[in-house]
Amino acid sequence: MVDYIGIADIKRLVGSMGAAQFISGLAQEIESDYRRWADFDKSARHAIHSPVGVIELMPASDGQQYSFKYVNGHPQNTARGLLTVTAFGVLADVATGYPLLLSEMTITTALRTAAMSALAAKWMARDNSRVMALIGNGAQSEFQAIAFYHMVGIREIRLYDVDLAATQKLAAHLRALGLNEFNIVISPSIAEAVKGADIVTTVTADKRNAVILTPTMIEPGMHINAVGGDCPGKTELHADILLRSDARVVVEYEPQSRIEGEIQQLPADFAVTEFALLVNGTAPARAGDHEVTIFDSVGFALEDYSALRYLHALQVKAAGERQQIDLIPHLDNPKDLFGLLVESAQPTATARATKPASVRLTAMAAT
Amino acid sequence: MVDYIGIADIKRLVGSMGAAQFISGLAQEIESDYRRWADFDKSARHAIHSPVGVIELMPASDGQQYSFKYVNGHPQNTARGLLTVTAFGVLADVATGYPLLLSEMTITTALRTAAMSALAAKWMARDNSRVMALIGNGAQSEFQAIAFYHMVGIREIRLYDVDLAATQKLAAHLRALGLNEFNIVISPSIAEAVKGADIVTTVTADKRNAVILTPTMIEPGMHINAVGGDCPGKTELHADILLRSDARVVVEYEPQSRIEGEIQQLPADFAVTEFALLVNGTAPARAGDHEVTIFDSVGFALEDYSALRYLHALQVKAAGERQQIDLIPHLDNPKDLFGLLVESAQPTATARATKPASVRLTAMAAT
Repeated sequence: MVDYIGIADIKRLVGSMGAAQFISGLAQEIESDYRRWADFDKSARHAIHSPVGVIELMPASDGQQYSFKYVNGHPQNTARGLLTVTAFGVLADVATGYPLLLSEMTITTALRTAAMSALAAKWMARDNSRVMALIGNGAQSEFQAIAFYHMVGIREIRLYDVDLAATQKLAAHLRALGLNEFNIVISPSIAEAVKGADIVTTVTADKRNAVILTPTMIEPGMHINAVGGDCPGKTELHADILLRSDARVVVEYEPQSRIEGEIQQLPADFAVTEFALLVNGTAPARAGDHEVTIFDSVGFALEDYSALRYLHALQVKAAGERQQIDLIPHLDNPKDLFGLLVESAQPTATARATKPASVRLTAMAAT
Repeated sequence: MVDYIGIADIKRLVGSMGAAQFISGLAQEIESDYRRWADFDKSARHAIHSPVGVIELMPASDGQQYSFKYVNGHPQNTARGLLTVTAFGVLADVATGYPLLLSEMTITTALRTAAMSALAAKWMARDNSRVMALIGNGAQSEFQAIAFYHMVGIREIRLYDVDLAATQKLAAHLRALGLNEFNIVISPSIAEAVKGADIVTTVTADKRNAVILTPTMIEPGMHINAVGGDCPGKTELHADILLRSDARVVVEYEPQSRIEGEIQQLPADFAVTEFALLVNGTAPARAGDHEVTIFDSVGFALEDYSALRYLHALQVKAAGERQQIDLIPHLDNPKDLFGLLVESAQPTATARATKPASVRLTAMAAT
């Protein structure tokens, strides 16, 4: 049997502790896993693209446990009432190859992306950052706002989306949280949202080379959390922002980000720093208050590994509510897989007497 | 909701039609998919190796549907009562990226591997093949025997395994099937099993460069179905067998087989033929009765794509018994993922009145 966390389970798990605490706890796990970067077997995710979207597999392993996530990205889905991103993942035991946990990751991906964004900002943004522009107010936006309020100390958030209904939904959710001293502003344009902000988060969905942020919007000292550009041909920043002489660009896993990140717009020798170097103390996160720091985020498999381990630990702790599914067989004799089918062909003693396994299993005429 | 086929379901699905008919129907699907080889987005599978085994992801897509399989290979598992190979897979819709079916594939992989082996032998072995040596009598062996009896016309099978108990288990299962005119022989050695056989199937599990078949065992006209060599460093045939001047080597997907197949022992320019060329009529399967044909099989993602589509069609047809799991959320507003969690924080009207969502979702102190 394999442990299972479905939608009902994740709602219960997150609901019982609160999204903010879930995100903060997960961010600690992610940071701790990035500190042991060298332990991981890393690879750029496997992607199959179609004209309307992408389906990806994201595996990672530290030699003890293995995880992968299935995730799609289909910006046109919302027009037909479907999610842009759905996901699920599996945690497995490297010693036996057996899967341990199958979990939903649609909600978990939004939580882990917010955790990673806020974690990167804690390292990279100016310490006194209080104002954030949040461009793109879709399914992931509440999670970003909550993470930055609680983990980074953001106290004013400026919202912008081409879809005003999405912005209103986000604003309503944030107001309902009743957060202390949290100023929620609906901005009339990206430029107004960004002007004077300490942090700019872009989390838009269009699968194209969009220019959400233009060079003139960017001010010295800003931290840019670029979440939405995460596919070949899907970017959010004008290349000149990355090319500023005072800009520092941090990525998760360079080989993947060269293909999928904002830096896909630039030559392969454009200098970037991997996030692991920051948490290991090998590279500085920011050199002074005037530098523009850019977290060119695409989402890396290590973060999903952290999330699946975190979920599994929460599930085990929450006993009583633990679900399992029969995805893998249990055999008394592991070399006798066929025996399972013979059982099924003999469902009862009566059936066995009247209809032997040999009849059921060889019903087809020989050719 | 996502359709689900667990162990109980696959037992019922296979049990209701019989393994032989399941394998034969699946072989037709696999052949039909190989005929449209050019439609598929193909890649060598992603593998993470450890000292004791391998965990692999095998994606494929024809632009309409997408599938992947998770599969492990851990030869030492049987010593602790676990399966060498476990597997599960997912079928998804390319247009939306939504998963359609999650299915067990431990049993299904044994069935599809047998289907593929027998399908290849139908194309490659001599028409009058009646005697098969089956070397390696573990979890997959019954499926191979059934497939070759029904699809290829094998009437004498010679069994050999280093573990005599495994051979006895296989022989007992095969005898219990009560197949007409089927001679089941337990051989004292590989050499005796192979001598005079029309087809030799090797399906051993050791993760090393084993030499199950040596050059002197091979006779003109034989067809070798080499199933067990399917990892870097895991082979079954002496390289000189592949190098025979009268040998024709067929693989599934050349880039993957160069890494994993028997041909990993040979230079990268060693000539092989992809199976798709046989079924497309582009390349001959065998040139005369004296040629030695070798199906250097490693298992390709297209075969799992076929299997998942076949399973899903069977499941849909078998109505009433169709299970589903809540792996993916359904949202009234697809941009409002957060709304799901607010629901969960307000489980009842009473709770909502006494404990607003804002409390539950922001339980953590601001940092």
